[in-house]
Amino acid sequence: MKKYNFKDSKVIKEIDLLKNLHSWSAQGNLDPIVVEKAKGIYFWDSNGKKYFDMSSQLVNVNIGHGNMKVIEAIQEQAEKMTYMGPGFAVDVKSELASKLLDIAPKNMKKVFFTIGGADANENAIKMAKMFTGRDKIFSRYRSYHGATYGAANLTGEPRRFPAEPGIPGFIKFFDPYLYRSPVDFKDEEEACNYYLEQLTEQIIYEGRDSVAAIFLETVTGSNGVIIPPENYLKGVREICDEFGILMVCDEIMAGFGRTGEWFACDNWGVVPDLITFAKGITSGYLPLGGVLVSQDIADFFNDTTLMCGLTYSGHPMGCAAGIATLDVYQEEGLIKNSKLRGKVLGEELELLKEKHPSVGDVRYIGLFSAIELVKDKVSKEPLVPYGQDPGKIMPLILSKLIKQGFFTYTHENIIIVAPPLIIKEEEIKEAMQIMDRVLSEVDEMLK
Amino acid sequence: MKKYNFKDSKVIKEIDLLKNLHSWSAQGNLDPIVVEKAKGIYFWDSNGKKYFDMSSQLVNVNIGHGNMKVIEAIQEQAEKMTYMGPGFAVDVKSELASKLLDIAPKNMKKVFFTIGGADANENAIKMAKMFTGRDKIFSRYRSYHGATYGAANLTGEPRRFPAEPGIPGFIKFFDPYLYRSPVDFKDEEEACNYYLEQLTEQIIYEGRDSVAAIFLETVTGSNGVIIPPENYLKGVREICDEFGILMVCDEIMAGFGRTGEWFACDNWGVVPDLITFAKGITSGYLPLGGVLVSQDIADFFNDTTLMCGLTYSGHPMGCAAGIATLDVYQEEGLIKNSKLRGKVLGEELELLKEKHPSVGDVRYIGLFSAIELVKDKVSKEPLVPYGQDPGKIMPLILSKLIKQGFFTYTHENIIIVAPPLIIKEEEIKEAMQIMDRVLSEVDEMLK
Repeated sequence: MKKYNFKDSKVIKEIDLLKNLHSWSAQGNLDPIVVEKAKGIYFWDSNGKKYFDMSSQLVNVNIGHGNMKVIEAIQEQAEKMTYMGPGFAVDVKSELASKLLDIAPKNMKKVFFTIGGADANENAIKMAKMFTGRDKIFSRYRSYHGATYGAANLTGEPRRFPAEPGIPGFIKFFDPYLYRSPVDFKDEEEACNYYLEQLTEQIIYEGRDSVAAIFLETVTGSNGVIIPPENYLKGVREICDEFGILMVCDEIMAGFGRTGEWFACDNWGVVPDLITFAKGITSGYLPLGGVLVSQDIADFFNDTTLMCGLTYSGHPMGCAAGIATLDVYQEEGLIKNSKLRGKVLGEELELLKEKHPSVGDVRYIGLFSAIELVKDKVSKEPLVPYGQDPGKIMPLILSKLIKQGFFTYTHENIIIVAPPLIIKEEEIKEAMQIMDRVLSEVDEMLK
Repeated sequence: MKKYNFKDSKVIKEIDLLKNLHSWSAQGNLDPIVVEKAKGIYFWDSNGKKYFDMSSQLVNVNIGHGNMKVIEAIQEQAEKMTYMGPGFAVDVKSELASKLLDIAPKNMKKVFFTIGGADANENAIKMAKMFTGRDKIFSRYRSYHGATYGAANLTGEPRRFPAEPGIPGFIKFFDPYLYRSPVDFKDEEEACNYYLEQLTEQIIYEGRDSVAAIFLETVTGSNGVIIPPENYLKGVREICDEFGILMVCDEIMAGFGRTGEWFACDNWGVVPDLITFAKGITSGYLPLGGVLVSQDIADFFNDTTLMCGLTYSGHPMGCAAGIATLDVYQEEGLIKNSKLRGKVLGEELELLKEKHPSVGDVRYIGLFSAIELVKDKVSKEPLVPYGQDPGKIMPLILSKLIKQGFFTYTHENIIIVAPPLIIKEEEIKEAMQIMDRVLSEVDEMLK
């Protein structure tokens, strides 16, 4: 066994704080949990305390921790071949491409592998521009597509600000976030039509021949599991067809069973031109991402140089992990499980909404869900104002959850609940009791 | 053992061409080598043909293929813990940060881990902007920093074009590429002063308080192993200090012994504010990259939120591979070996330059080298014009090398030679005999 210098958890934390920079944080008052073990839907800190992993880490560990089938596949590939450059043909790269295309919407014909979600979106932007010869890119407010410049410029929330001044031609439109829509629609259909008409109008103002692609998270993820109204995605598809725009579904978070289907777009039978993916493809065991493209786009690059590339494209280790992970989804019936257990989770969430004055809305599809906190159910005033939380109320609520063993993350006034797809009914109920208790404390804060 | 569907090399290639998109290529006439095995400085195709890996793949497999110390570390970590999110403290993340800071220039105090080189540069851009409160970013023509939008906008060669229209405030300056300098300098010192004065003037025109950072590949890599003249980097450092600009050394390709020192900047005793790295840190065995930052920058983010993040930041598997790879460099004396064998390689290159009319220039430092091909030694006219190769001459030359078992890659009119740091003297000589033969054929083309 390889010997490491730092074994004591106190030292590990001390060195971590001294030498590592942590994401999306001021470093001065961090208190990271030292994790020693993770298995299934749980992980344990260095004091032996056990946590439900109710966000599957960053909504990526879909098959749960420590799955031996994937671990063994990684170990075998390490012995066989760790790395070859992207220019070669390697068995596992052919195999994973083939497997992926088997489960993807039928119009998808080729894959370009990346190492993560951000660079999947980066490459999709470039492909769309090359294919259409157009420069403008549409994406939505309240979306997150990654933190590198191109992905951040797609992003419609504050995490894009450090990548501004923005890239010319990146345009934002409004998402159909019905819970906070400025118009009081009589039904989903009316809402859907309103947002589609607004999008059409905006495209015309930007130039009907100018837009290369519309990017959308099929189900908006970290910004609150915002589920599109019925017929919305179908409508976007029609708009894209009308104006010769490519439709790009960002399935980085929503793909691989998270919503109860292989890809979230399958829920509405909508077929995009490109799909970007990452996270669930390997359940985080190794870094991997990519772009799926339709036949037309694949064919276009037969004669035109694909001006995309990265050292780790099609990394054999990531591909081996991806193959094994897809096998686990299939052999363990996890896509179906997500749908079944998602019903249980949905029922639990509805009960919480009914019971707690602080819960304004709950949204769920498969095992992908969010609890939106408000000061008042009628006015819908968010528990914390958008982009601000001077009283650090949300971190406080999160720390209460984590202290009681419910690990997840929050965003704005929203708590994400997205456990691994292997979770059992009784485990959902047990974890949600913790949520129930903490929400009661939040109710108290409102008084 | 995990069973894969595709075992036959013909089928692997067929599926690869049918279902994978390859980097930087038109897909229509690709003929990828199917690789079955790789060990040390060699790899073998499915016909059993053996190749010298004379570019260490993409100048990243510095320790050679199939090193069991790294393989075992990966296998052990897979069993122990594959993934935890970036917010946690994990033993291997503390350990790798600590080891890295031990070998890095002494002013480096913290590390932010990414998954590759492009996103290392992306994050360095954002950090520099946040730290300085300024928006403009300087980088050089003939540089390559990655293909995502931010990294591509740093890039000073045609691979940035698909990421244009560019990001506002990304400014290019000229590199001191002395072989093709427009001025006939009397010595390196005069050249160095010219380029530094030009840079100073350009900073003043762009606004002396406007520039956040100057990015440079310490030794320009794929664009031709362009080695800075003595005192140039020191001069850039002084300019940065004068104007309050951060100096960022991109050591993605040049770091980890490639130039005969841990980091290329060590060759000139120059201390940047940030260093970006990837490639050699794991020798490609697993994806990993990152940004090293000085004390001042680390301290700044104690109170200011670091607006950077990615799902795979500090991935435990990549960290375990990184630790083991650093151990290999140390235990096998590879940094020193790079310097020693680099002298042999340099001698071989000088002989080729002397002998072949087609060789205009050779440049080398450690085991990092390039052969620049010309139509005429006196006029220095490049063998193919910049950004164009209508006769596909360079691919033809490359295919001749590869057919004879010398694997590498070319860029413009340049052949890269950068073998793994474990290469022996007799192996260099044997491989360079192939180069010698192929260059004789290139000489013939000139007649």
